[in-house]
Amino acid sequence: MRIKIINPNTSQEMTESIARAAQKYAHQGTELVVTNPRSGPRSIDCLYEEALSLAGVLEEVERGLADNIDGFVIACFNDPGLFAARELSSVPVVGIAESSFFFACMLGYRFSIISNLKSEDAAMWELVKRYGIGLRCASVRPADVEVLDCERDREKVKKGLARAGRLAIREDKAEVLCLGCAGMTEMDKALEKELGIPVIDPVAAGVKAIEGLVACEKRTSKISSYRFPKGKGNMK
Amino acid sequence: MRIKIINPNTSQEMTESIARAAQKYAHQGTELVVTNPRSGPRSIDCLYEEALSLAGVLEEVERGLADNIDGFVIACFNDPGLFAARELSSVPVVGIAESSFFFACMLGYRFSIISNLKSEDAAMWELVKRYGIGLRCASVRPADVEVLDCERDREKVKKGLARAGRLAIREDKAEVLCLGCAGMTEMDKALEKELGIPVIDPVAAGVKAIEGLVACEKRTSKISSYRFPKGKGNMK
Amino acid sequence: MRIKIINPNTSQEMTESIARAAQKYAHQGTELVVTNPRSGPRSIDCLYEEALSLAGVLEEVERGLADNIDGFVIACFNDPGLFAARELSSVPVVGIAESSFFFACMLGYRFSIISNLKSEDAAMWELVKRYGIGLRCASVRPADVEVLDCERDREKVKKGLARAGRLAIREDKAEVLCLGCAGMTEMDKALEKELGIPVIDPVAAGVKAIEGLVACEKRTSKISSYRFPKGKGNMK
Amino acid sequence: MRIKIINPNTSQEMTESIARAAQKYAHQGTELVVTNPRSGPRSIDCLYEEALSLAGVLEEVERGLADNIDGFVIACFNDPGLFAARELSSVPVVGIAESSFFFACMLGYRFSIISNLKSEDAAMWELVKRYGIGLRCASVRPADVEVLDCERDREKVKKGLARAGRLAIREDKAEVLCLGCAGMTEMDKALEKELGIPVIDPVAAGVKAIEGLVACEKRTSKISSYRFPKGKGNMK
Amino acid sequence: MRIKIINPNTSQEMTESIARAAQKYAHQGTELVVTNPRSGPRSIDCLYEEALSLAGVLEEVERGLADNIDGFVIACFNDPGLFAARELSSVPVVGIAESSFFFACMLGYRFSIISNLKSEDAAMWELVKRYGIGLRCASVRPADVEVLDCERDREKVKKGLARAGRLAIREDKAEVLCLGCAGMTEMDKALEKELGIPVIDPVAAGVKAIEGLVACEKRTSKISSYRFPKGKGNMK
Amino acid sequence: MRIKIINPNTSQEMTESIARAAQKYAHQGTELVVTNPRSGPRSIDCLYEEALSLAGVLEEVERGLADNIDGFVIACFNDPGLFAARELSSVPVVGIAESSFFFACMLGYRFSIISNLKSEDAAMWELVKRYGIGLRCASVRPADVEVLDCERDREKVKKGLARAGRLAIREDKAEVLCLGCAGMTEMDKALEKELGIPVIDPVAAGVKAIEGLVACEKRTSKISSYRFPKGKGNMK
Repeated sequence: MRIKIINPNTSQEMTESIARAAQKYAHQGTELVVTNPRSGPRSIDCLYEEALSLAGVLEEVERGLADNIDGFVIACFNDPGLFAARELSSVPVVGIAESSFFFACMLGYRFSIISNLKSEDAAMWELVKRYGIGLRCASVRPADVEVLDCERDREKVKKGLARAGRLAIREDKAEVLCLGCAGMTEMDKALEKELGIPVIDPVAAGVKAIEGLVACEKRTSKISSYRFPKGKGNMK
Repeated sequence: MRIKIINPNTSQEMTESIARAAQKYAHQGTELVVTNPRSGPRSIDCLYEEALSLAGVLEEVERGLADNIDGFVIACFNDPGLFAARELSSVPVVGIAESSFFFACMLGYRFSIISNLKSEDAAMWELVKRYGIGLRCASVRPADVEVLDCERDREKVKKGLARAGRLAIREDKAEVLCLGCAGMTEMDKALEKELGIPVIDPVAAGVKAIEGLVACEKRTSKISSYRFPKGKGNMK
Repeated sequence: MRIKIINPNTSQEMTESIARAAQKYAHQGTELVVTNPRSGPRSIDCLYEEALSLAGVLEEVERGLADNIDGFVIACFNDPGLFAARELSSVPVVGIAESSFFFACMLGYRFSIISNLKSEDAAMWELVKRYGIGLRCASVRPADVEVLDCERDREKVKKGLARAGRLAIREDKAEVLCLGCAGMTEMDKALEKELGIPVIDPVAAGVKAIEGLVACEKRTSKISSYRFPKGKGNMK
Repeated sequence: MRIKIINPNTSQEMTESIARAAQKYAHQGTELVVTNPRSGPRSIDCLYEEALSLAGVLEEVERGLADNIDGFVIACFNDPGLFAARELSSVPVVGIAESSFFFACMLGYRFSIISNLKSEDAAMWELVKRYGIGLRCASVRPADVEVLDCERDREKVKKGLARAGRLAIREDKAEVLCLGCAGMTEMDKALEKELGIPVIDPVAAGVKAIEGLVACEKRTSKISSYRFPKGKGNMK
Repeated sequence: MRIKIINPNTSQEMTESIARAAQKYAHQGTELVVTNPRSGPRSIDCLYEEALSLAGVLEEVERGLADNIDGFVIACFNDPGLFAARELSSVPVVGIAESSFFFACMLGYRFSIISNLKSEDAAMWELVKRYGIGLRCASVRPADVEVLDCERDREKVKKGLARAGRLAIREDKAEVLCLGCAGMTEMDKALEKELGIPVIDPVAAGVKAIEGLVACEKRTSKISSYRFPKGKGNMK
Repeated sequence: MRIKIINPNTSQEMTESIARAAQKYAHQGTELVVTNPRSGPRSIDCLYEEALSLAGVLEEVERGLADNIDGFVIACFNDPGLFAARELSSVPVVGIAESSFFFACMLGYRFSIISNLKSEDAAMWELVKRYGIGLRCASVRPADVEVLDCERDREKVKKGLARAGRLAIREDKAEVLCLGCAGMTEMDKALEKELGIPVIDPVAAGVKAIEGLVACEKRTSKISSYRFPKGKGNMK
């Protein structure tokens, strides 16, 4: 199967990190195409930047459809453009936040999200509400780092994750942690060792979720909410 | 006070309809600037088109901030880019869906939304969830019309509204109706006469909501969720 | 338009404070009638006193209907008798709590209510549930003052508000504050300066909400929940 | 133990019906005082009449406290003044709606309420929300009768109940029915025979709930929400 | 009436404690049969042990049905097998958690559960969700004791209850406490004296709930969710 | 990796069907052990039978742990014993209902469950509530077949599924269907062809979910809710 992973920002370093992690978790038979839009925000630290990333994400979906892709992963923890991408595509599209939440729910009763910044709190809760699993989310705790810190200063990010994770366990009864940024990929194992609870790598979760759907030959429902936009219905 | 109303699509006729309606409801002392983005989708009939409208909407907000605007109304019933616009601006920004729901809640116990198309059902329920008032929303009923029908064929739209409204009253216990598209502006009074219950004109609701906030000299909270995007903080 | 504002308690001083604030925020063309019931509790610090206020509030609504009033504001943060008043009237009736919540939701993601007393916590949460917006309410924080302190000792009230507001911001992630008592009217601006986030004056919110509904010529839905009480249907 | 049952309306016939039913279900050792306020609405068919009944209900609570009552039942399915009565009293106070809902939940997965009138729908759902058990309530179905029909025309009421109950079973998956008016007391057994599912007599439920609480020597919590109104604390 | 109380674990001492408490609260005319399964876990401190108790509990229900029992109480705060028992029986079956929650709701606005162990947190919240009353539950606070400590070391349990109860009052706004283990029976009165708020003895609550249902001659609804298992329908 | 799939009933034919389907969807490198308990109910058509299956399911988990299993799937749509199994095991355990719901949420906005019998409605909704995704579940529609019909009369089951699925699409706005019984495995593709929307095979979903978790080397959180039962902690 041929999977396309879209990093919604234009940071090449992050696209490469995501590619490395994805390759590690992908099954042997899975061919990965990892890319980012040609233009758009260099990182997504707020809703404004998320909004500006959408056109690029959707263009990458359209290009993927022309390129015989069997499934898409949107690799930013805001899941930008996820529902719109499902309108364009009849092959499945998953977001890494969505995939992480479902994985987390299967490993513990309550999970916490470690976000980058405190200001993302509302955005994270809106995601949780959108996927309907609010009751299982214990809290959103910021690591107090920017997205690009994940490339620039991994030690700072690791410290922020550990501090936030400890608070989530002690104050909020978190039993599982979700790393709330694609840039935090591959930081799960060390944090698990340090904190003693499961930690979800969002890129890994996205890859396994899309592989599962494609292996079952499932396709996006086109009957109502994700109908093709008019004049786009002759796409794959 | 100086209010900017942004029609997120690029249909000039719709911008003009919105301007006419807004003028009718605006207070004498309110100066209105009604506009639409320079480029973007010609109408917003799905989430894909909504996503493509965002960059234009936000650009109009930025231009408005440079132009001493005191408050913004986003005049599409999906409230596209509303939270992102609040990040950019410290003067208040309201959506017409949000404003309509609050008006509806003050006139009856349960309201229904009359949407354009059946495929918008999920998008409408997500809006209702976002504003937290799900329990007061009785149903979403489609009028089975496209956005541009509001300009092309107003009779068709009126018939669709009446049919959908009747179903909402009879099947779903609706006590108030929200017209779920900016293009349906000024169709409220005739429908009220026909159906006997209050009908909310979304443009009117948006205008009165922003006038109220500005008259009270309220500003968007910048403490957390709607913090200025980095490097944008010297805006108004 | 002719608006009647009903202070549900019998404190003349409070009626006068409300009148002053309302006048400041009302539009030029708005004629205000501000009043209180002839008999009833001198202040409303508990549900027992709220219950005893209802007959007086509803009598004022009936008198207002005979007096060609175009819209009513019930100016106590418990919104006493709001739904019953809507049964009596086909012109719109709003409560100041309801109006405050809707304003708050348009300025920040989460709001907190500053109540008078700790014992009002349940009553406040019941209000929030009634209007369906529970998910956006971060907390109820008491200022530890009685209603009549708002007349007797405004310094004490201001200190209580600041202390409670600070806790709401720090502990509960409040981004907007609602002043939870009509007696706290006109204390918003100073508190905004002190705390740096928007603060809703409930009297102002009520005035702007009713003006908006009346300007749009909206009326209470009489189709079901707010049907006229039998034998009362020949009222306005 | 000495239990006072308050019929909130001033219909003597209904007070007598309630007394007869209560006597039948009360335990041998239970002494019943069944009464109604001296003045107030003759029946409670809407929220306006409910509001007008409150002063009388609370006066009866105060008289009961002076009369060594061990527990109170408010015998109208709107549970008028229930929380306010709890403020006045440290002996337990129950409402017949509340008691009925809890009984119903122990006999089937989902229950429906048979109300008097269609216009009570919102009031019934507000009750269900207040007691927090919304997910177990399948529907509110009106019998299309007024409160006083329960005295005037019991055949009409019985037919209305059967028709509404059948709809609740067939359309809403109701497994238990709650008779939504004190005037419907003693109509449960015949309806059970006709429909084949449990039917809750609200007066019976209220009597058994208060007997249970008093037998366990439980008292109303005075620590916060139901604190004594100031100057009332020297009551029983 | 003849009531069977089933202690789901095989600890004889606990069965005897339950019997003593139940006898104290049962009405004179109530004949009690208090028992435990012949085999199964010696105590229920986790979901694994709860699962292992089910076959024994249901066997006791079947034996009770053959023995002309009029109602059942399952006397473990996990309410193990409650819905399955309702399938077997047409006479009512109540759980002590369910009964406690309903009693608590009638005495204060918010209640907390004092559980045995911190690890039961998820199980308790699942119970609260199952009975639909999540909004009234303030918190679950562990006493940090095992079930059998209730027999072995009552002083330790009492101290744990007091400490947890104080936290629930101070941190979570609890107004009523539910003792979250059948082994804690008869510890309510001393704790009430110490903490000043109502405390629910779960065995007492279960006894009064089942007595109430049986006195009203109510039976389990067999129309859908609690239908007799096939080939079991000729039971009482 | 070595995965154990437990069919909780003792029907050999069903275990074989499950094994066939699982083999089809499992990855090449996945070694499958498919089994059923030695004793227990022959099928699970009600909560009573589910309760009786638990001891057997948990024994199979314990045997699997001794047998170096890397992950478990409980292959009955009630997910019997899922949380208790997580207590026993530190390798991941998933239920097929849980896995199906998550897959469904990634393919459409709303899904419906096709259950065997109408009487399972409550059990299905409890599952949905447990996993927190209630808002995305459109309905539960019975195919009106017993579990063993899936072996005895596959034509009857297929007809029941198609009829129920059509109702779910037309009446409830379902966009995806979940086959609500392990016995319905491999009926998804034909139903997709007939109805035109995605249909989830629960065995396939369970297999892909556990493969994903194991591939990411995730383990069950042992910090709180799923702590090892005392004296069991030296298990894998």
